[in-house]
Amino acid sequence: MNCTILSVGTELLIGQITNTNSVYLSKQLNLLGINVLYHFTVGDNKTRLGEILKYSIEKTDIIITTGGLGPTQDDLTKETISAMMDRSLIKHESSYKKLHEIFKKLNRSMTDNNLKQVYLPENSIVLENNCGTAPGFMIENDGKVIISLPGPPKEMISMFESGVKKYLESKTSAIIYSKILRIFGIGESELESILYDLIDGQSNPTVATYAKEGEVSLRITSKAQNEEQALEIILPVIEEIKKRVGKYIYSYDNEELHEAVAKILSEKGISLSLAESCTGGLLASKLTEVPGISVNFDRCIVTYSNLSKIEELGVKKETLDNFGAVSEETAKEMISGLKRKVKSGLHLAITGIAGPDGGSDEKPVGLVYIALEYKGLLVCQKFNILGGRERIRNNSCLQALNMIRRIIIEN
Amino acid sequence: MNCTILSVGTELLIGQITNTNSVYLSKQLNLLGINVLYHFTVGDNKTRLGEILKYSIEKTDIIITTGGLGPTQDDLTKETISAMMDRSLIKHESSYKKLHEIFKKLNRSMTDNNLKQVYLPENSIVLENNCGTAPGFMIENDGKVIISLPGPPKEMISMFESGVKKYLESKTSAIIYSKILRIFGIGESELESILYDLIDGQSNPTVATYAKEGEVSLRITSKAQNEEQALEIILPVIEEIKKRVGKYIYSYDNEELHEAVAKILSEKGISLSLAESCTGGLLASKLTEVPGISVNFDRCIVTYSNLSKIEELGVKKETLDNFGAVSEETAKEMISGLKRKVKSGLHLAITGIAGPDGGSDEKPVGLVYIALEYKGLLVCQKFNILGGRERIRNNSCLQALNMIRRIIIEN
Repeated sequence: MNCTILSVGTELLIGQITNTNSVYLSKQLNLLGINVLYHFTVGDNKTRLGEILKYSIEKTDIIITTGGLGPTQDDLTKETISAMMDRSLIKHESSYKKLHEIFKKLNRSMTDNNLKQVYLPENSIVLENNCGTAPGFMIENDGKVIISLPGPPKEMISMFESGVKKYLESKTSAIIYSKILRIFGIGESELESILYDLIDGQSNPTVATYAKEGEVSLRITSKAQNEEQALEIILPVIEEIKKRVGKYIYSYDNEELHEAVAKILSEKGISLSLAESCTGGLLASKLTEVPGISVNFDRCIVTYSNLSKIEELGVKKETLDNFGAVSEETAKEMISGLKRKVKSGLHLAITGIAGPDGGSDEKPVGLVYIALEYKGLLVCQKFNILGGRERIRNNSCLQALNMIRRIIIEN
Repeated sequence: MNCTILSVGTELLIGQITNTNSVYLSKQLNLLGINVLYHFTVGDNKTRLGEILKYSIEKTDIIITTGGLGPTQDDLTKETISAMMDRSLIKHESSYKKLHEIFKKLNRSMTDNNLKQVYLPENSIVLENNCGTAPGFMIENDGKVIISLPGPPKEMISMFESGVKKYLESKTSAIIYSKILRIFGIGESELESILYDLIDGQSNPTVATYAKEGEVSLRITSKAQNEEQALEIILPVIEEIKKRVGKYIYSYDNEELHEAVAKILSEKGISLSLAESCTGGLLASKLTEVPGISVNFDRCIVTYSNLSKIEELGVKKETLDNFGAVSEETAKEMISGLKRKVKSGLHLAITGIAGPDGGSDEKPVGLVYIALEYKGLLVCQKFNILGGRERIRNNSCLQALNMIRRIIIEN
């Protein structure tokens, strides 16, 4: 089966936003064994949208549109599709009720244009929107399927996952199945040279590397009749990869590093407290993204000013004067201070220079110290992270998370 | 003048890479006053590429292709274009020489397929590639222009800057200029109904709304001879928008809300300390993204556990027992505790239920209290935020930032 992904929105054509919807949908359709033949993008223009819709229907079996379902006047995807399919738009009662409740909850008055959202083509399968107000829909017509999803990526993804995936699965037979291994602590090219024969020599499964901000992912993909058969093809290759680079693999399920760490803390029942300086709460915020982390995560003291390091963590003024806020000595005193406040299973402190200012020849931007205390062990590592402020902050968090993971596994 | 951006490459259709070329080119063409009507993406398939090329030529004046100029067999953009235009491919001598030199420098033997790259359509304007091996070209035919650029973004951008921009400038006289206003505290549909006549009635400038995670952007775009003239057209409309919804506009320069708040703190010389519970350091981490914030931002106490609220901020056990951790009483006591620790110009505390667990009928997931103390004023606002954990955390931060902005401006 062939598919067109048709994005609607002038904001895409003027380069205001990047079309990540097409990337997501392409990946998903691929996994379902559906060939994506075209990505089309048109603006909020009825004639051009209509013409391209016609072209897409002529050329492919499935057409997925994103965007143009909202309340405003330039949202006209639904109107164009229903006109082309000769179906009228009718009020969808349960969507109408839901919309009313949302506005009531928000304590906002519902303007008339909002009503437009709950009028949907007759004889369509309505897709509920769990993250926003505009429902989507699917229309089957003459052996073709048109699926209309909202433009905001979160709403689109949630709707695809909950309403569309199962439907498309029922339409296909072969599947493409991938496992993604997440790796930290080894560069992409080094990894590639270690796994050269696996990457180069195979067609089912295929092995591919992807680098992303100091991390590497390995995707192992196979074509099969079903998931079970796919796993039979994939698992021996994963075993071989594990033999060669196992200690760098932190997830066999495409988790983020902070998710993997949260899982270890939870499994081992280890509590955690943090002290952050240059990362300004970013590490705590990453960890608290994970539902249920409140069982393990106790507190974080973000000591951004020097005074706060003294007042909150009892870092000595002499230490700051003699060694500076970014030093092994300060990082270790931050740990001591944290331990006086709270007896967690693991204490970690970060101090560094995120830039762009504040660096010197001796202590350049990107210099970061991370201290960690676990089971009576106190370690402190020094890092020189290249890049801008954002990368330095992000990478500091990744390094800290990796240190947590390694010290727990190795002790 | 109208334009199609046609990307060629199967890697785009399987979602392996994101189409950033279209974003870059759209922005550039917009600045040149050229309307981009379509983004099309097709795979490395001669038939489909040919058909879409034909469609693009029928519908628009300028067609810019990216990708498919390289040495491998699946690179066939050039072959398809030259066949359609009835032009033969001829060896381009200076490109041939350059290619030879590159391989000599790399100390690599040049395989035959590399030669393919220096065969270009006759009577075309050749575009030198300063970052790679495949040259591009431009063909003028029957009042239409086809411009073929390589796929790798660096090569494409460099070629556009050095060879294409000037050429297109000579073909246009007008520019398109946009200002983006950022808005918080009013929904997209309500905003649109207030600005109805401005959005609907005008063609130069145009006014469009764009919603993103609880925020709205307003884009005001004009066509003019130059930037100065464009501003003359845009500024009166911005004045009118300001009159109607000025209090919701937090940036006239497309800044994020945390950037706008950091700027106000800096301009007014106000110091800030935070206490966060459900947001787990996210607000601190957002603010510390901004370079130079260390002048104003002092510390943040992330009190995730109940015990930490008691120990760090002196929240009373009875308060937690009687009213719960998520209550106005607790939020206010978090402020009191923070004030005992540090005398900042502004103190803010957040406590809420981020979910997915921990909600009840009385206190549902998404219930958030934000307390704020500034110039002796103590306010506490209650929010019911819809959506998942991520949205609740993000939106809590946006609400907190908005409260900071408003209380400073209004007092």
